[in-house]
Amino acid sequence: MTFVKMFDFRRLGDDRGSLVAIEANNNTPFPIQRVYYIYGSESNVARGFHAHKVLQQLAVCVAGKCTMLLNDGNTKVEVVMNSPTKGILIEPMVWHEMHNFSPDCVLLVLASEHYDESDYIRDYEEFLKQVNQ
Amino acid sequence: MTFVKMFDFRRLGDDRGSLVAIEANNNTPFPIQRVYYIYGSESNVARGFHAHKVLQQLAVCVAGKCTMLLNDGNTKVEVVMNSPTKGILIEPMVWHEMHNFSPDCVLLVLASEHYDESDYIRDYEEFLKQVNQ
Repeated sequence: MTFVKMFDFRRLGDDRGSLVAIEANNNTPFPIQRVYYIYGSESNVARGFHAHKVLQQLAVCVAGKCTMLLNDGNTKVEVVMNSPTKGILIEPMVWHEMHNFSPDCVLLVLASEHYDESDYIRDYEEFLKQVNQ
Repeated sequence: MTFVKMFDFRRLGDDRGSLVAIEANNNTPFPIQRVYYIYGSESNVARGFHAHKVLQQLAVCVAGKCTMLLNDGNTKVEVVMNSPTKGILIEPMVWHEMHNFSPDCVLLVLASEHYDESDYIRDYEEFLKQVNQ
């Protein structure tokens, strides 16, 4: 048991194909104000390297795979994301990094707020300072 | 000029990879209450074949490609969806079908409401009757 919350989404579908639905406030603990997707990343590229003060996010790898590293300042958890039915919650004040993108990876993220640069903590030492206050 | 509204999303990114962000009410004409994605469809499978009375949807093909057929009862428009930066609005009372899924296709759809079976019109003759009232 760690601070990381995972979600299992129901796969609707049959031999013809699959469908996964995520409803705001039903399958997410927040309203969905922003949806973004990351794709076309090189395997040697790492992304993220920040925490948010307020923003809540739910990430799902809808194609291919990547590795998500979450760090609450005390514990680091590494999760291989390779299923459209597995979601991972990125809560506020959790440092996160994404690594090992497969060429076909599409990482879908649902977020609780519109973009706000002032919500980012991009300096790791500053993150540790704030989280350990 | 047809009844079909297309959206061009800005691709944020560089040589390392791409990111597309869609914000509720900024990049969509509706709040985002539901997010679903269709994947693993066989190429000989067709999906959709319904219209909605009230639901508004924005569809983006975030991986692979498929063909979207939209029909307002008077005009049929066929759009090849093959770009993570191209969105298509599916407005109420528009019959829609999806065809020609590539094996790697992931069709992402943002919707204005939670799932409601009573909002579906699944009979084409009934759709024509209602739309031509």
